[in-house]
Parts: sequence; C-alpha cells; structure tokens
Amino acid sequence: FPIFQEKHEMPVTATLADRLLSTRSHSEALCQPLQTEDYVVQPIEDVSPPKWHLGHTTWFFEEFVLKPFVPGYSVFHEDYAFVFNSYYESLGERVIRANRGNLSRPSVQGVYKYRRHVTEKLMEFLEGEVPAEACDLVEVGIHHEQQHQELLLTDIKYILGNNPLLPAYSDCGPEEFPKLGAAEWITVPGGHYDIGHRGEGFCFDNELGRHQVLLGDFEIASLPVTNRDMLDFIADGGYRRFDLWHAEGWDWVNREGIRAPLYWHERDGQWQYYTLKGLQPVDPEAPLAHISFYEAYALAEWKGFRLPTEFEWEAAQEAFGWGNRWEWTGSAYLPYPGYRKAPGALGEYNGKFMVSQHVLRGASVATPHGHSRPTYRNFFHPHLRWQYTGLRLAR
Amino acid sequence: FPIFQEKHEMPVTATLADRLLSTRSHSEALCQPLQTEDYVVQPIEDVSPPKWHLGHTTWFFEEFVLKPFVPGYSVFHEDYAFVFNSYYESLGERVIRANRGNLSRPSVQGVYKYRRHVTEKLMEFLEGEVPAEACDLVEVGIHHEQQHQELLLTDIKYILGNNPLLPAYSDCGPEEFPKLGAAEWITVPGGHYDIGHRGEGFCFDNELGRHQVLLGDFEIASLPVTNRDMLDFIADGGYRRFDLWHAEGWDWVNREGIRAPLYWHERDGQWQYYTLKGLQPVDPEAPLAHISFYEAYALAEWKGFRLPTEFEWEAAQEAFGWGNRWEWTGSAYLPYPGYRKAPGALGEYNGKFMVSQHVLRGASVATPHGHSRPTYRNFFHPHLRWQYTGLRLAR
Amino acid sequence: FPIFQEKHEMPVTATLADRLLSTRSHSEALCQPLQTEDYVVQPIEDVSPPKWHLGHTTWFFEEFVLKPFVPGYSVFHEDYAFVFNSYYESLGERVIRANRGNLSRPSVQGVYKYRRHVTEKLMEFLEGEVPAEACDLVEVGIHHEQQHQELLLTDIKYILGNNPLLPAYSDCGPEEFPKLGAAEWITVPGGHYDIGHRGEGFCFDNELGRHQVLLGDFEIASLPVTNRDMLDFIADGGYRRFDLWHAEGWDWVNREGIRAPLYWHERDGQWQYYTLKGLQPVDPEAPLAHISFYEAYALAEWKGFRLPTEFEWEAAQEAFGWGNRWEWTGSAYLPYPGYRKAPGALGEYNGKFMVSQHVLRGASVATPHGHSRPTYRNFFHPHLRWQYTGLRLAR
Amino acid sequence: FPIFQEKHEMPVTATLADRLLSTRSHSEALCQPLQTEDYVVQPIEDVSPPKWHLGHTTWFFEEFVLKPFVPGYSVFHEDYAFVFNSYYESLGERVIRANRGNLSRPSVQGVYKYRRHVTEKLMEFLEGEVPAEACDLVEVGIHHEQQHQELLLTDIKYILGNNPLLPAYSDCGPEEFPKLGAAEWITVPGGHYDIGHRGEGFCFDNELGRHQVLLGDFEIASLPVTNRDMLDFIADGGYRRFDLWHAEGWDWVNREGIRAPLYWHERDGQWQYYTLKGLQPVDPEAPLAHISFYEAYALAEWKGFRLPTEFEWEAAQEAFGWGNRWEWTGSAYLPYPGYRKAPGALGEYNGKFMVSQHVLRGASVATPHGHSRPTYRNFFHPHLRWQYTGLRLAR
Ligand SMILES: [Fe+3]
Ligand SMILES: [Fe+3]
Ligand SMILES: [Fe+3]
Ligand SMILES: [Fe+3]
Repeated sequence: FPIFQEKHEMPVTATLADRLLSTRSHSEALCQPLQTEDYVVQPIEDVSPPKWHLGHTTWFFEEFVLKPFVPGYSVFHEDYAFVFNSYYESLGERVIRANRGNLSRPSVQGVYKYRRHVTEKLMEFLEGEVPAEACDLVEVGIHHEQQHQELLLTDIKYILGNNPLLPAYSDCGPEEFPKLGAAEWITVPGGHYDIGHRGEGFCFDNELGRHQVLLGDFEIASLPVTNRDMLDFIADGGYRRFDLWHAEGWDWVNREGIRAPLYWHERDGQWQYYTLKGLQPVDPEAPLAHISFYEAYALAEWKGFRLPTEFEWEAAQEAFGWGNRWEWTGSAYLPYPGYRKAPGALGEYNGKFMVSQHVLRGASVATPHGHSRPTYRNFFHPHLRWQYTGLRLAR
Repeated sequence: FPIFQEKHEMPVTATLADRLLSTRSHSEALCQPLQTEDYVVQPIEDVSPPKWHLGHTTWFFEEFVLKPFVPGYSVFHEDYAFVFNSYYESLGERVIRANRGNLSRPSVQGVYKYRRHVTEKLMEFLEGEVPAEACDLVEVGIHHEQQHQELLLTDIKYILGNNPLLPAYSDCGPEEFPKLGAAEWITVPGGHYDIGHRGEGFCFDNELGRHQVLLGDFEIASLPVTNRDMLDFIADGGYRRFDLWHAEGWDWVNREGIRAPLYWHERDGQWQYYTLKGLQPVDPEAPLAHISFYEAYALAEWKGFRLPTEFEWEAAQEAFGWGNRWEWTGSAYLPYPGYRKAPGALGEYNGKFMVSQHVLRGASVATPHGHSRPTYRNFFHPHLRWQYTGLRLAR
Repeated sequence: FPIFQEKHEMPVTATLADRLLSTRSHSEALCQPLQTEDYVVQPIEDVSPPKWHLGHTTWFFEEFVLKPFVPGYSVFHEDYAFVFNSYYESLGERVIRANRGNLSRPSVQGVYKYRRHVTEKLMEFLEGEVPAEACDLVEVGIHHEQQHQELLLTDIKYILGNNPLLPAYSDCGPEEFPKLGAAEWITVPGGHYDIGHRGEGFCFDNELGRHQVLLGDFEIASLPVTNRDMLDFIADGGYRRFDLWHAEGWDWVNREGIRAPLYWHERDGQWQYYTLKGLQPVDPEAPLAHISFYEAYALAEWKGFRLPTEFEWEAAQEAFGWGNRWEWTGSAYLPYPGYRKAPGALGEYNGKFMVSQHVLRGASVATPHGHSRPTYRNFFHPHLRWQYTGLRLAR
Repeated sequence: FPIFQEKHEMPVTATLADRLLSTRSHSEALCQPLQTEDYVVQPIEDVSPPKWHLGHTTWFFEEFVLKPFVPGYSVFHEDYAFVFNSYYESLGERVIRANRGNLSRPSVQGVYKYRRHVTEKLMEFLEGEVPAEACDLVEVGIHHEQQHQELLLTDIKYILGNNPLLPAYSDCGPEEFPKLGAAEWITVPGGHYDIGHRGEGFCFDNELGRHQVLLGDFEIASLPVTNRDMLDFIADGGYRRFDLWHAEGWDWVNREGIRAPLYWHERDGQWQYYTLKGLQPVDPEAPLAHISFYEAYALAEWKGFRLPTEFEWEAAQEAFGWGNRWEWTGSAYLPYPGYRKAPGALGEYNGKFMVSQHVLRGASVATPHGHSRPTYRNFFHPHLRWQYTGLRLAR
C-alpha cells in the first residue's frame, strides 16, 4: 500500500506538469481503500463527501485554468460548477455546503471520468507554451488540491470513525505514533523577529507581508503535549472544571456533552482511540490529537502554562521538530500588515475568513509532503477538532 | 424492464414460500436501476436510503422469525440490529432516523449478502413444519416489506428528483398518466355502513374491529382531482390566499415557501413535473400527486367542496375506481372501537402512531400489487407529500 | 376577595348590556392581585402577557362592533390593531405571537384606559337601537372575552409558577380541591345519540350541525382520575415505559425531560404542587390537572382502559358531574358534518384550527361561570398542559 | 432633567463613599424616565431588563463586599443570588441569560428596596475602618456598575426602539449629534509604542501587562466615519456586494436580512433613525452608530481603507478626539503578554471572554463620565450592534 511512501518521491525540481500529475494521482491513491458508498456521505456539515473533494479540486482547475486559458475549451458538464463550487460567490450559485451529502449523482465513476478529462486537458495545455499567469494558477491549483488531500483524509476518518461498525481505512495508514519522551523548555530571547514568507517559493497570500514583530523573552516546549497529559486532565476532572475554560468553551462542553477528545471511546474503563487502522488503546506516549481550541486552552490552563502566539511559534520553530500535529496557537486569524485580497474569485481564497478563527501552525500526519512550511497559517473555528490538532505549551 | 409487470404474476393461491420469495426479489428488482451511490443518501429525515430499506426489511424477518423460531440461528452480524432497527423501542438501541444517511457501511454488497443469507434461511425454514404463529409472522413480514417497497420507490424518487442533475430512474417506470375525463358526482344515501376488515385475508391491526357507522347522505367524485384543478388553483393565487388554509397549513406554506406541489418546477413560464422517467410537462388530464393534507384541504375549499371522511370513502369505494393516488381523507388517524395493541414489539407497528396524523385511503402507482384493499388505512403527518398523494372531492 | 363569587351573581335573564359590563369587569377583577410587572411577561410562546389579553379582548369589540356599527367611531389608537390582533389574517399585520412579551408599551395604565374607553362606547351604543347582527357580535365578544378569562388565569399561573420565587396569586384563588371518592363505572348502552348544540342559546360554530352518531356499548367513570393514580403511575416508572406512550409522546417525554405533571416539584422526596395560593403538597384525593394528551393516553394505557371519544362523553355527560378539569378525549378536533366557516374575519375563529389538535370536553375551575355547556368543544395540541387538563376513563 | 449633566459634577478627588453614592444614584437616575413595564422585558438575549441591571449591580456589591467583609451580614433575600448572578460559575446556579425577561418578580419596587438596603449597608461599612482589599472591591463594584450603566441605556434604547409605538425615552437624552466636518489623515510614524495601562488609577485586568509593540508607519482618520458614508454605501449596493464582506458577515447579512444599521427605518424613501428622543431623519454629518464589526469591515473595504488595530489606535489616540462612538478595531480580543486571571470569582470578569470577540476602543455618548481611558478595551462579538458602535478608518 503505497500512499504515504509516495510523498517522499517527488523532487523539488520536478516540472510543473510532473507535480500536477503527481498531485492528481495522490488524491486518487488516498481514495483507493474506499468502497463506493464511502465517497458519498456527509455526517456533519464540516465533513465533505470524498467524491465532492475529488470533483471540487477538478472544478477548480477547470474554472481557473482551462476555461480562461484554453481557447475553445467547453466544460465537461454544465451543472458541475453548481455541484462542485465550494464557496466562490463570484462564480455563481452553488450547492449549499450542508447538502453535499444528499447528492448521489454525479456518481463516483462520473467524477473519476471528470478528473481524467480535466487532468488530460491540463497536461496537454502544459505541453504548449504556457503564460506565466496560467503557471501561477496551476501552482495554486496544486496547493489547493493538497489542502483538500488533508481534508480528504480527515473527512474519511470522520466518516468511518462515526460509523457504528468502526471499519478500518487501511492496515498501513498514515497514523504512526512516535513515542515522545519528556518535553524540555526551549528558551527564546525577546527581540525583533521577521514574520511571514520570504523568497521565491509558493505561498498563500495570507503569509505575505513579511514584517518585524517585537517579542518578549519566552520559553516553548520541545515537544507537543501527549495523550498522557490528556489522560491526567480527564482523571483530574478537567472537563468538569469551569475555571479552566473560556465561557464559550464551557458552553460547548456542556451543550455537546464533551468529555474526551474526538475519537476517544471509553470501553470497560479503558480509553480507546479510533485510528485509520481501527480502534486501539490510547497510547500515553503519542502526541495528543483531535482537540478543539477550547480544549487546547483548558489543558494549557490546567498545566499552568499557555499556548504560544503564532509569532512565537514561527520565531522558535527551527529549534524544535514539528509536523505530526497541527498546533493551536493563541493567535486569532487576522491579516498581516498591508494585506490586500487578490482581485477576482481567488481573492475569496483566504481573506474572507479572517474573523472568528484561530491560527494553527505546523503540519500533521495527514498533510501532503511539501505542502507545509514554517510560515504556513492554517486556521479553524475554535470548536472544530476533526483535523489532527494538538498543542505545544509555552510560558 | 420487468419490474412492474411482475406484480400481476403471482396468483393469490401461491404458497407462503412462493410469495415470500417473490416479495424479496421484487424489492431487489426495484433497486436494479440504481447506482451504488443512490443506495446511500438521505436528503431529508423522512426519506431513508434504499440500502436501509433493504437491510431493515431483512432485519425484520431475522428478528421476528429466524431468531425466535429457528433453533440455533445466530444473527448474521451482531451490529445490524442497531443499524437496521427502525423504531422498535422494545428491541434496544438504534441509529437515530435522521442519521441513516451518514452510514456508508454496511456496504450495498454487504446488505445484499445479508438479504441472501436471511432469504435462504427463511426458505429452509419454510420447507419444514412451521408453527402457525411463525406463518403469521412471515405473512406480516411480507406485508411489511411491501410497505417498504412503496417507500423505496418514493424515496428513490426523492433522492433523484432533488439531485440538481435530475437523473431519470428508468425509461419504463411505474408512473403512467391515465387521461382522466370529467368527474361525476356519485350519490350515496345515508345509513348504516360496516367499516373495517372482514374475512380471512391478511390485514393490519388498525383495520380490525369491524363496526357500524352512521353516515348522512353525501356525494363523492367518480375521479380524483387532476392537475388541471391545481393549475387553476395556482393561477387563481391559491397559495397566497390565507382564507383557504388551516392556520397550520398557512404557516407551512410561508415558512417553507411552498407555491406548487412537490416535484413541480416552473421553467420559462411552464410547469414541469419530475417523474421517474425524468422531467416532463405537467399533464392537465393526469391525477394530481405529491400534495400535503394542507394542500388537499385548501384545494377542496377553493373548489367549494370538502374531503370525504375515511368512512364515506370506504362506504362508497365500490362505486369508483381507485389505486392511482393515495387519497387524503378528512379523518384523523385514530383507533377503531375496541382496538388493542398487540403484545410485544409488534404492538409498536401501528398503535403508537395514532395521534397527529391523517388517514389516506386507496393505493398508488407505487403500491405493490396485492398490498392494498378497501379497508386499508394509510396515514401520514399533514405536511408530508413525497408519497403519491392526491385527493377526491366530496360534498 | 370577590373574584370567584361573582360568577354566580349574574342571572341568565340579564340584559346584554349587563352581561357585557359584568364580563368586562370580571377580566379586570381577575387581574386585581397582579403587580404591574406581572402583566408584561411571556415566558413561553403559548402564554400571553395579561396586559395583552386585556387589550386583545378590547380590540375585538372595537374591531367587530364599534368600527362597523358606530358611525364616526375613530379608533382609540391606530397602532393598537397591530399590537392586539391575535391571528386574524384578514385584518392585516400583527405582532408575532412569540414577541408579545417584548412589548413594554402600551403600558398597563394605557391598556386600562383603552378598556374604559371601549367599554363606555359599547355601553352608549347598547343604549340605542341595536341591529340584531350587532347584538350577535357583542354576544360573540362576551364569549370571546370569557375564553380569554380562562387563558388569563392559566397564563398568570404559568407566569408566577415559573418564577423562581414561586409567588402566590392570591390567598383565596379558584383552585379548590374537592376530595373525590372512588370512581364507579357508568354503563351506557349503545345506540343513536344526538350530538351538537340545540336550542336558542349561544354556541360557537364548531358545536353546530347537530347530528346523530352511532355508539357501541361503553362504560365511563363517574369521576375524573385523581392525583393518586398519577402518583402510582410515577412510582411504577410510567414516565420511563415507552410501551405506554404514543411514539410522538415518547419523543416529547425524552426531549423535554418530562417526569411529572406541570407544576409538580419533588422536594425531599415529596411531591409538591404549585397552586394559585402557592406551593402545596400533592393531594392524592384531588382531581389530576396539568397533563398533556400524551400523558392522559399513557395513564389510561397503564390503567388498562382508554379515553372516551367526545361523542361518548357528550352522550353520557348527564350521568356524571364535570367542570373541575378539562377532560382530554380520544377525538381529534375535526368539523362536524356540514360545517362551513363563517364569512369574513370571524370565519377564522374556529375552523382554521381543525387539524392536529385534540378535543377536550367539560370545563375547569378557571372557566368563567356560564361559559361552558355539554356540547362545548375545547381543543389543544397534544403536548400542551398549562390549562387545567385532566382525564376521565372509559372502557 | 438632570441625568447627563451629573456626569461632570464629581471631582476626581471625591472619596470612595462619595463616588459610590454618586454611581448608585446615577443608575437610578438613568431609569427615571421609565415606566414600570419598561423595566421588565428582554426582547433579545443580549438585552437585559433594566430591572435586572439594577439588581445585578447591587448583588455584585452584596456578594463581593458585604458578605465577605461585614461581620454578621445576612443577605437581603436568599433567592436573589440565583436571580441576579450574571455568569459567575463559581457562585452557583443562576437564571439562564435568555430567561431574564420571563421574571415579573422581584418587582421593580422590590429591586429598589434591595438597592437602598445594600447602598445603606455599604455606606455604613465605608464609615468604619475599611481594609484595602475591600476598598479595591468597592472600586471594582463602582466600575462594574458604570459598565452596566452603559448597557442600561443601550438596552433601554433597544426595548423602546423595537416597540411598534417607538416611544421616546426622554426629550433631553444623551444622543447629541455633533456636526463632523471632513476627516483628515493623521500620519503616525512607525516604531515602538508602549501599550497598556500605566500609573495608579483604576483599570481592568485586561489592560495590564504594559508592553512594547512595534508598529509600521500608518495614517489614521481624525474623525470617525459619518452617516454620509453609510448612506453612500447603501446607495452603492454595499449590502448586496459579497466581495466587501467576510464570509461570516455575508451569511449574517443574508440570514438576518440586514440592509442598514440598527435603528434605521426607511419611510417614504427617506432614512429615519430611532434615537432616545424618538424617530429623526438620519443626519449625514453625524457619526455613524449601531453597526456590527462585519459592517465596519465592509464599509472600510468599500472606502478602500481598513480598520486600525487596537495598538495603532492607542498609539495615535492623543492626536484625535474620541468618545462619541465605540470604534471597532481590526484586533481580536486576546490577552496581553503575561496576562493571568485573578483568583476566585473575579477571575471570571474578563479572561474567560478572550476568544471570538473583537476589540473596540474609545467610549460613547452612553459611557458614564470617567469610565473610559485611552487603554480601555471594550469587546463584543462581531455581529452585535446595539451599542453605540462606529468606526475610524486607517491606511
Ligand atoms: Fe477548495
Ligand atoms: Fe418498517
Ligand atoms: Fe382571541
Ligand atoms: Fe456584570
């Protein structure tokens, strides 16, 4: 089963066409273990059907590359823009997000046919002389599809992990559980630090506007928080102590009846954890995953420490390993100084979400190879936890 | 395509085993035109995934026949009772109805395997000496599966008819549209009429308790209301005149933005109707379908007439043809005199729904052959209209 | 404290003007024990602020009598129709029911001023020569105000009884608790019974259309069910036994966390009951009150009996005492044969509610003297229980 | 009518007791124009009944000063803690916020009695020797009551301004409308700025942790945005152009049907604005008020500028006048470096709200004299707009 080895095989110097093809087939490889039925369902609004991800990433290329740059290109199916547009208001009406799981058609086969068609047209297009703007858009499309690859995997986990039969996704899925030793405090001196993307490589617009920030002295943990801390937090009644929580978090805990991270099941007094390989005992040495910002905050409070800001994280990140869990930071998702939205539909990519969300830094076991970087800004609403989300302490 | 011919082929004198087998395969034949994805989705709570119907009707036989009567029978899969129990509280926990569409597993293939297994065990069982009580339960199971066959078809129609691609179910589906001529008034003299099931044949418990009712003189239409009346009602602003509606119906119209029957689409000033063969112009001669009780009442008000009671319908039914549309009556669904629920789980079949619903009489194009009879009492909440529901006028 | 004696003082032969004046002042007498703040709040949608009842019953006379029949009458305040119209769609826009408790103005004093103004104009009008139609409308207005007097008292009970301070309404409120002895079965022979209003006296349109019904033999209890039965039902786990409930009722019990009648509080293992005089121990001999139709049905199931139909109740009512509790019947609220709505706004009075509700017969301690009669049809949705609702068994 | 003159009369050097008494009577003076009914209602969850504010600010003193520091003090009424606790989880159960408007009792008179009792006990207490900690708590109580004075006025505006009669609060309310001329850009050089409270005076814990921030060069408007800009924004279709809005803001606009600021009414093509003096034409020269963060952001987008951060605002504030409107900033409400919650119930004052809210700076016409300062951090959820909220542009 070759899904996750593959990520190391594509050299950075690969051509755009090579990287496109590799990205396109990686999405399909991720779906290889699925049964047709798994492609269709949407158990909660935040989780999209795998079929939809496959179609939507394809539509993105059709809409932003083939339609504007390939003379005479006619769309594969005129209704697909309606079905597979995610949220681009500039591009017309769309299926409401909560209804994606109501659509049995287009069929899975139909979507694969759509993918092949668009991939082929793109490859043909890239064989010719390609304007720089189009190259940039293909690049955006690749990174866009990589983002959806992570969602694909976390959505699959949600679909299977909330099925009463708890079926495994694969015997050799991506969830390795490194045994983490004891974390140490890394001391970072205060001063001026440069924040934001630098250099030639690809980045999203929300990373641009490199600027200096002034930080005070701080310490940051060398390792993320492990399940051991969560087990102790639970044992100490952490989910029942309002003083550890934000008011909003406390409401969430009570309204939703939360008493453990997502995918944790108590069976005969033992905590089990649903992984892509099926149910397994919670490993105290493994990094904690699937917690909301509220839980990250409460856990840090309980430990007597705090979350780092996204600037502290970026300033310190060379000094520690990261990439196994997205790490909640104490920073709200806001524009960097001088941020301006791109014109047109791509301007809707990031900017319009810059309110009411929190920044996560790092990457996770589900992030495609080469998709993250030290300046990458991931963001989610504070109650969400179906991504591989954890935390790192600071003080 | 043999689905709907089949219904005429089974003689009444067929053995129980023959009828069981025929019923079991008819459910599967109904699903033959589906793609795997169509089996899975649940666009609204009332509509169940076809896969679920196939599994649930199977579980019913396993639970009520195989488990109690076949010594040493072990269930096909221990979690299936949880997945496929519909509402029998006596039989333990179950998947909440609204969540049926979140389940990608068991797969369609898995469900067919389950069906084959249970059908085979039932056939083996029926080859031996079968206690009378078990025969009765097989009989109930057959009628139960027939009820679900109708739901299967109406749920499939909803799934496909609410897909933005509006795919057809089949080129030769069951929706024929007889051209109805002008209805005539049939005069029925007042007096005593016997109501309720008589004789040896199968019926549900809600038809029992045959009793006399006293009716006044009345007239009832020889034909159901056609689309022509609905077109006129719409043209006359019927959906915007509160005086024609129940208060509850008027709230429903406004809250849901109702302005035509279900499956009606206005395209370029013309009314189109989604049928199992795809979108077609509304045929003014065809019997009206897919209306709620509220709409039936408002339409009758607008015509200056009324709905018949279920007793009037039953008393008069020999004088007119019926079977194309379920006909809303003016009667609430209540127990007949002397009605007692059966003991045990089967007691949950009908009795516990006898509040807040209205009775429909007759049958529809989607009702399996032999499933209806003059005393049959169908019932739905007044806002529902995804069945083939129409009305017949009285005065 | 003269509120409830007063009801016996008005002889049937009193003039219309006398009865009008008496009715108007009775509404005000009912509010005498209130503090200004009590007039304003609306803890749930079904409960209206007392101030609103006082204004609405006044608006009714202004709208249906003064405006059409008094030449040159100009309305007291042009916005009051908007504020005090309840549901008459024919009469224009209105405050949405759920928002009545948001209105601090018009003030209580303003409403009393409005009442005085309208009452005076009505009295002047009745001194002159009054067309028969206007007399009828004054009559309707009196009965309308009497209906609201009952709601006034039950809404006041809800407002005070859901306040954490549990204040008493009055030391000598209307809730007497007769000690009921053991009920006996009254045998009623089957046959033809006349149902519906007869004679000259006032009745609502839903009682008209006197007609014969055919009833079987039945027995009906001489007394309503007492608190003792409810105490036993609770002790026997009645609220946790799904087999006793309608499916809809069982959902209601679980969704709302119902475990006793409304106003019952368990304190130190004893059941207390909030009355208009304050909290008191539940008296096992007193007739049960404040239960929903679902609870009435479940309690009857548990006793092994059933609710009478409204026809059985009417046929038998001379043989037993009634009037202390509204008695849930097994009948849905539907039109009598030949029922037609009145033209105009008054046509909205009853007819548009004839769906999804159940009939109650009798009267209650809160019903104004002379307001009920054997053919009176009260109706509520099956989950409501803030009226003085109980039940009588049949078999 | 002396309410708003009073604010200039209390010299800074007044004793604690003087200031306490002055604060207590100011709350009552604010309510002087109310009718009893106005004290009771709660039209939306965010708006509390005036009666509740009067009781809650009193309870705060009783709970945090009298109970711990006055030997033998017994509470005025044992149920008041339940009724008047706002959100202090450490202090036990409380009335759910949404239900405050359901409580007709304690009566307004009862609450005034409660106020007098507690104020007297406090004054007696302050005559003796008072521990420093108690002084601090009285100080907190004064500032707490001042915060509620602003809410009292904005809640009263909401209660009256959403009444269909649109009654005025007072002929000489606090809403003056200065004629603003043309704004100018104030240039602020980048560099290090000190942020946070300094010195001896009172501040809330969220202002502490004075620290340096590094800002780039920026310009900030000398005046807040006026109604003229909003009128132009509306005329230009600003409420219908999704590209100007956050995704969340756009959902809000569509879900709530927003098309103008709160309290704006279009009458015969003219925009009217409900003020505390009643309905008045929108004055184009007056500072814009009653907008959400979403609207502030969209308006700034439409102008081609942006909101200042709270740090830019604080760094620049000496160069411009402020105090007429709370000004939305681009900053999320987050803790300053080193922020720790106070121990005990007071720790719930600010810290637990530091998620999902945005910071406003300045003060408004409704802010009590002496309650604001350049480091004051006000905060609200982005959709709220019943405060006097406006914006100032930056670039
Ligand atoms: Fe996307
Ligand atoms: Fe079933
Ligand atoms: Fe009324
Ligand atoms: Fe407070």
